[in-house]
Parts: sequence; structure tokens; C-alpha cells
Amino acid sequence: MSGGHVIPGYDPGSEPAEPPTNPAPEPSHAERTRTLVAGQTRGSLATLATDPPGTPFGSIVTYGLDDRGRPVSFVSTLAEHTRNLLADPRASLLAVEAVHDGSDPLAGGRATLLGRLEQVADEAEAEAAKAAYLVANPQAFYVAYGDFLCVRLEVLSIRYVGGFGRMSWVTVDDYATAEPDPLAPHAAGIIGHMNADHAGAMVELCHAYAGRTDVTAARMTAVDRYGFEVVADVTGPRQQAAFRVGFRTPQAAPDGVRKELVGMLHASRP
Amino acid sequence: MSGGHVIPGYDPGSEPAEPPTNPAPEPSHAERTRTLVAGQTRGSLATLATDPPGTPFGSIVTYGLDDRGRPVSFVSTLAEHTRNLLADPRASLLAVEAVHDGSDPLAGGRATLLGRLEQVADEAEAEAAKAAYLVANPQAFYVAYGDFLCVRLEVLSIRYVGGFGRMSWVTVDDYATAEPDPLAPHAAGIIGHMNADHAGAMVELCHAYAGRTDVTAARMTAVDRYGFEVVADVTGPRQQAAFRVGFRTPQAAPDGVRKELVGMLHASRP
Repeated sequence: MSGGHVIPGYDPGSEPAEPPTNPAPEPSHAERTRTLVAGQTRGSLATLATDPPGTPFGSIVTYGLDDRGRPVSFVSTLAEHTRNLLADPRASLLAVEAVHDGSDPLAGGRATLLGRLEQVADEAEAEAAKAAYLVANPQAFYVAYGDFLCVRLEVLSIRYVGGFGRMSWVTVDDYATAEPDPLAPHAAGIIGHMNADHAGAMVELCHAYAGRTDVTAARMTAVDRYGFEVVADVTGPRQQAAFRVGFRTPQAAPDGVRKELVGMLHASRP
Repeated sequence: MSGGHVIPGYDPGSEPAEPPTNPAPEPSHAERTRTLVAGQTRGSLATLATDPPGTPFGSIVTYGLDDRGRPVSFVSTLAEHTRNLLADPRASLLAVEAVHDGSDPLAGGRATLLGRLEQVADEAEAEAAKAAYLVANPQAFYVAYGDFLCVRLEVLSIRYVGGFGRMSWVTVDDYATAEPDPLAPHAAGIIGHMNADHAGAMVELCHAYAGRTDVTAARMTAVDRYGFEVVADVTGPRQQAAFRVGFRTPQAAPDGVRKELVGMLHASRP
């Protein structure tokens, strides 16, 4: 945000009390985008309406992803968006992170994949697309119907917004080769466990690995393969700080995270 | 749906065992659309991107409604959608009913309002738009910032999809003059109460007011000013039926619904 706005709960100017003992690596925007899009199965499709002419038309679509992260879907020939895309394939898919009730609706992450939404004509490609779609939408009985078309979004540009102050254009190639975060399906469980049962360890980790010796209490707010994010109570006039703590090596599974956190704690103690 | 598809849980061919004793009035699609749009404060905006040129671009927007149901919003001059709409005001807002976890993502209602999203230049109109926006988004501290623009969607056409098999274009005038359902904020409470505490009365109402003497158990699934919707266990090969029961007169408040249901029960008993 520009112009010195104060955003409640967001403090970009918060600097560590001393430099972190290790730099905190974090997911690239390409990785964040791929993780976000892979974490949803429903998004907003935007196509071009014919009435009023050329007006962008928002609708709901369910989707899966192929191995390069291209959204694949099955759309009814009765639906407006299908008529629209058959007349002009320019389209985008907007995927939005779920936000908790009561949280700011603009604080969550979202990504827009722009390109051309085209029918998959090749039979083998259509079979692969159907398989990818059914992984994400096992309830989709209509894939067998003749009046549903198999379509795929040929992605040409990507806009990522991770919340206040975190946004960029992501290159299509970076997105296509990025892996969704392997911890994403387990993140809520890890966060809940650490905050419920390991309040003391969280403070120790902030002291030792983020240089935040001013921390008196810390709550994990996000976790990914490279580390975790924290909102902490701190001594001094600011009272609160938001920052990141990196793992020493990337982690792919909850058990690895557990061992890494235990190892980090042991290594930090005299 | 065409072509004789079988959609789980949806049985459009289910006919009452005997004709209903009173016709079951229901909200118009204009009323359903206005209720749906008024029930949300966040939607998907579709604007026209410049790269790739003319490609529809989906983003998130928070909104309120003016007295004719036109969405009003405040958008950051740093946001892509703002750049897009300043270059070309053609846009749509997609509002989507919340669906419960595990339910079919395509079974919920949604509405697309298409038109021109333009800056509100007139000072008095901007003040009114700001007031409407803040009713829906009381947390929106940024309305005071100079780099946020007040915009309003001049609605030119409206597409409503109420779920499988219920969809139409709604005229702008019907939408603008429709009242949001006064029971919408109370619907979850009424439904929960009726299903938890009045299972016997629900069956009696189906027998007496929908001509469904084949009902053995009934669950309320929706309620509005004109009546309620039911999914029922029935005797016979179909086993389940979905239908509507109308109030004798429209109701505007939960207490009115309670009195009307008690009155209907008493009137139906010998």
C-alpha cells in the first residue's frame, strides 16, 4: 500500500530486534499461485458476453488442473459461458482462497489466470483432462454427457494477489513448473496443533531463528514447505509484530515439520 | 436439464399425489436475484484486461447496493481492475450464494449483473454511495483515502441461475424494483427450528397444503416470504420428493411465519 496508510493488523515496517540468524526463505509468487489454484475446485470464470456486446461475464465453474497447472473443465452447452467462449475464447479463471467468517474479505489470496478457454478436441488429451477434472470433482457425473464440452484454459498471463501489499504478475512458465505446496492439505492441522500445545516452543523459535528476542507470545498463522508465519506479542511500543521463521531445509510432510521443529529447538539450546 | 439426465437429489418430474389445496406462490427470479445480491458483500468483478488485450479479467470486489440494487464500491487506483475499468467501463459483478461444505458447488444460486462500472462523479451521489457501501462493509476504513475511487455499476442486463434447472434473464426494471426477501436474514434460524422441533407439524403441513398425503417425514430446506421448500420421504417407488408449500399470505418477519404456520395447522385440523 502507498501513501503511509495504516492497515489494521498489517505492519510492513516491523523490523526484527536483531538480524535473523538465518534468512527466512519463502514460496515464490509462482509457487503461491500454483498452491492457491490447486487448493480450490471452483472458481469464477470470466468470458465475453454478446449482450451487452463485449461485456465481461462472470460465472461459476468447477475445474481440475493438468500437469502444467492449466485449468480443465466440463461446461454445459446450455450455459451462457459456453455460448460465450464458443464465440470468443478469451477468458480468465479467478481462484480465491477461502477466508474465515469475520475476516477481511480482501485479506485472502487470489489469482487470475488469463488466456484462451478452448475445447479439447484431441481424444487422448480429452481423456487426460477428464481424469484431472474428476480428481478434483469426483461428484461430476455429467462428464459422460454428450452436451458437456471438455475445455482447457491456455494460460497467457497470471495476476497474483496474496493480500494487502503482496501482489505481482507471475510468468506462465514459472507457474507451469511450480509445485503446489505439499504441506497445504495439512497446514490447518499443523497450525492448530502448534498454537494449542506448543506456545513455549513458538516463543523459543522466534527468539532463536528470527532474531526476535522481544517476543513474549507467538501464534502461527501460516505454514508452507519453507517455514511458517507468525503474529507475535512483543515488548516495546509496537506491541505486535508479524514475521516469518524459515525451516533449515524444506519440508514435504507433517512428520518432517515435527522433526525439523524439534531439531531447531534442540540446536538452539545451550 | 435436457436429455432426461438424472441429477442426484433433483426430481423435476415429481408430481403431487393429489393436486395442492392452494397454489404455492414463489419469489420471482427478479426477487430471488435481488435477495441473493443483497445477501452478499463480496463478489467477482469481471473487467477487460489490456494484456492479453480484451481478455476478461476476474477479481474480487466488496460492494453495497443503492436503492435500485446497483452495486457501489470503492476500488484502489493501484488495482488492476481499476486500471481496466478506467480504460473500458464494461464490467459485470457475479454474486454467489454461500454453499455448505460438501454440497454440490453448482447447486447454489448465483447472479451476474452486467453493465458499465463508472466512477461516481457527483458529490451528493458519491456520499450516498459511500453510505450504502459502508452499510455492507463497515470495516472499510479506506473509503476516506484519496486513492480509492467510488464506482457504481450501471446495470444493463442480468443473468440469474438458481441451481440446476432454474435460470433466466431478469429485466433490469424488475430487479431494480424488487425487494430483497425480508426473511432472508432469518431463514437459517427458522429452518433449524422447524426441523429440530416440529417434525410432526411439517408432515401435517405437507399433507394439508401440498396435497402430499404420501409424505412420511419432511425437512424444510428453504423459506422465503411466500412459503417454504421441502425435501420429504414419501411412500411409493420414488421414496423422496422435493416440493414447495405456500403461506396463505406473504410474511415479513419470523414471528409472522410462526403465527402463519400455527394458523395453517389449526385451519387444517377437523
